[in-house]
Formats: sequence, structure tokens, C-alpha cells
Amino acid sequence: MLGVLGGMGPMATVDFMAKVVRHTPAARDQDHIPMVVCSDTRIPDRGPAILGEGADPFPALRETLRRLEAAGATCIAIPCNTAHFWHAALQAESGVPILHIVDAVAAALDREQGGEIGLLATGGTLAAAIYPERLARRGFICRTPDAAGQAEVMRGIALVKAGELDEATAILRRQAEALVAAGCARVVMACTEIPVALGPVEGPLRAALVDATEALARACIRTCRAQADGSAAPLAA
Amino acid sequence: MLGVLGGMGPMATVDFMAKVVRHTPAARDQDHIPMVVCSDTRIPDRGPAILGEGADPFPALRETLRRLEAAGATCIAIPCNTAHFWHAALQAESGVPILHIVDAVAAALDREQGGEIGLLATGGTLAAAIYPERLARRGFICRTPDAAGQAEVMRGIALVKAGELDEATAILRRQAEALVAAGCARVVMACTEIPVALGPVEGPLRAALVDATEALARACIRTCRAQADGSAAPLAA
Repeated sequence: MLGVLGGMGPMATVDFMAKVVRHTPAARDQDHIPMVVCSDTRIPDRGPAILGEGADPFPALRETLRRLEAAGATCIAIPCNTAHFWHAALQAESGVPILHIVDAVAAALDREQGGEIGLLATGGTLAAAIYPERLARRGFICRTPDAAGQAEVMRGIALVKAGELDEATAILRRQAEALVAAGCARVVMACTEIPVALGPVEGPLRAALVDATEALARACIRTCRAQADGSAAPLAA
Repeated sequence: MLGVLGGMGPMATVDFMAKVVRHTPAARDQDHIPMVVCSDTRIPDRGPAILGEGADPFPALRETLRRLEAAGATCIAIPCNTAHFWHAALQAESGVPILHIVDAVAAALDREQGGEIGLLATGGTLAAAIYPERLARRGFICRTPDAAGQAEVMRGIALVKAGELDEATAILRRQAEALVAAGCARVVMACTEIPVALGPVEGPLRAALVDATEALARACIRTCRAQADGSAAPLAA
């Protein structure tokens, strides 16, 4: 059973669950993956905590992890990029494998040769360097927008949270296109708000975009199906 | 904390959660309602069981209810109309209020005067008479399609499950319009697949349609906010 440590934010959790359901081959309810989901919106904000400006969310994350374990989760996902700052500390507390969103993205990139990968992410995710080291192990180098571009990314993310999707789409599309123009073959939407704005984008940019939420959903489907078959989980690292 | 007894089917659970998040007044994650969700897709099919043709889902429903209680749910929702056949039996097992989807629909209808209400629902929901008695208490009489029309409704629902949305929308729209033509001021989409097909419908029919999933989501928001305020829950009957 898939455990979802969610609520960061709640619509990102819903988007993640929808992607698990949509990408599971199924003809009836019983073919789908059982899930237990804690959408705990009381968890303190992750970004400010990483930047030393807010309450530590780790105790709340650990408590939610324990509730998922108690409910019988055999594999856990955290549909929030920034919260992966605490991934190792959470995994150290639990015998249940917690899939890492960057490993899932790396699996989605596997068919490409190594090279520069663009990152559209929050300041917290960038400050915590959640992507660069894990992607470097697979031969990828991360490129992020310059300071002015990053300020635009943050403005786009805030507009998504405020429901101003048209303006958000225009801003985030420009930053994604700038990363492609700078030589990135793929651009990772590494904040769960970004696919909400760039999901409907058509044209050449579409093929470059990598949805980290969808990558995590597909990794969970692979792991849960492998667990159900009794075979080794292909992505539990 | 809202408990969701879900997985019947899993996309209906996701749709319900999205409606809770979308209709909650919130500027940040922490303003949203914490949820624990068991999307237990292993629960046997409800319709065949009601018709005496399948395994009894009650033990699995009760087990999932207990997991939600153990996780700290203070109010429980079941985003599946047909599963409400077991509502009273489940409520008898639990001290946690389980909101009833028909009471939520009745609350959504409250501003209308009594009269005939059209029902688009599965054969199981109709056979179990889940709507008529509870709506009659509020002065509403239910009207359902004739046998040929009901066969069309079931065909439309099956097409939604198969992802054939355009044909499903055309079929379900015709049946909804027939109920309006027969004198129903409102038509309840009383199967969680139906809003997926009729949600985007525009024109005069739109004002007549009542989304039971959305009604349940709004009732949960009212109850959870009342619980958080320490006031009485307005819809725990």
C-alpha cells in the first residue's frame, strides 16, 4: 500500500494522487493501487525553515510518517520537492522505503544522455541543493535561472498559489524557454505548483519539460506493482 | 481532521479531495483542512453486492473506517453514493460522525422550494433507494429515468470509466435534459463518475445540475470548520 506524506500543499497532493491513478493500467477499481494519504496541512512551511526563518517542520513530518507506517504503508512518497531536504532524516527513522523525487526524475531522464538539465524550483529547493548532487550521480549537471530569472520563477509560483494562472504560465514559460535557449535539453518542473501552470503548454517546449510530480507517481506505481508481484522494487534507493 | 473512506473508485476520491481544497477559503497551506484518506481500492464492488450478486463490502468498509478513526479523523466522508447503502451500519460502529451524501445534497437544494428532483445514478444506488427517503424528509420527490433511459445512464457511466468522455457526455446530457423536460428543476449527479462527463456542460442545463460530490465536499468544509471553531457541526445528522 502506497503511503503519501502530503498536504504540502494540499492541491499538489491531489495532483500527485490523480497522476498515480491516471498512469496505473486498470480496468476496474480493484486494479488500482491502494493508498493511505495524510494531507497534513499543519506542517510548517519548508522553504523558510531551510533558510533559517521559520519553525522546523521535521517533528510534524516524522509524526505523519509514523501514522502512515501504522496504517500499513509499504512504500512512501512525499509530493513536495522542498520537503526532500528532510528525506534522509526521515528514512533514518523508518524501515519503509521512502522514494526520492529526484531519483524518480532521474529515472524519467534515463533515456537521455547526460548533459545540462534546467531546474525551475523554489528558492528553498535550490538553497538546499536537493537536485544537483543526486542528478550528478547520473551524469547530469543542473542549470538554474540567473538571479533576475529566479525572482521571476518565484513570482510565477506565487501567482499559481493565488490562482492567477494565465500570468503565471507566461512568466514560467519564459523562464523555461530561457533555460532551453541556454542549452538545456530538458527542464525539470521541480516545484509542484509549476505543472499546474505549464501542464497545458503546447509546442516545442512541451517535449523539454519534465514533471517531477508525474515522475514520482510513475516511480510509486513501479514500486507498488513490484511489491505486489513479490519482485524487488526497482526504485527504492 | 477529515477522514475520507475512499477508493470507490480512486479517481472519484481524488475529485472529492480536489473539491474540498478548491472550496476551502485559504491563502496558505495551513489554512486548509487536514485530511487522512484511505483510498482502499480492494473494497468489493458495491452495486453487485446490493443486487445480491457479489461479495459483501461491509467488512472492508468497517476495517477502513477503523483505520480512519485510529488516524484521528473527527468527521468522515464516503465519496461514493452507492456505498451509502452501508452508512447506518457503519455509523453504528463509530462515535465519529459520518456525513451522509444525501443530507449534503439536501443542504445544497435548501434554497429551492420542494418539488421533483431528477436522479442520475447507478442501478445499485436506485435499487438501494439511497436518495428517495432522505430527500422526502425535506419535501422533495425523486424522479428517475424510465427503463430505457436508465439503461442509457448506465451506458454513459461505463463510457466514463472507459475514458470515452465525448460519447458519455452526449448520453448523460440527453438523460438530464429529459428529466428537466419532465418537470425536474434540479437533477442530481448522484454517481461520482457523472460530474466527470457533465462537469464542463454549459447552457441552461448547467443551472439545473447538482454535483453530489461537491455538495459532500462543502458539507465537510462546514463541519470541519465548525469543529475547529468549537461550535456545533451544522451537518452531522
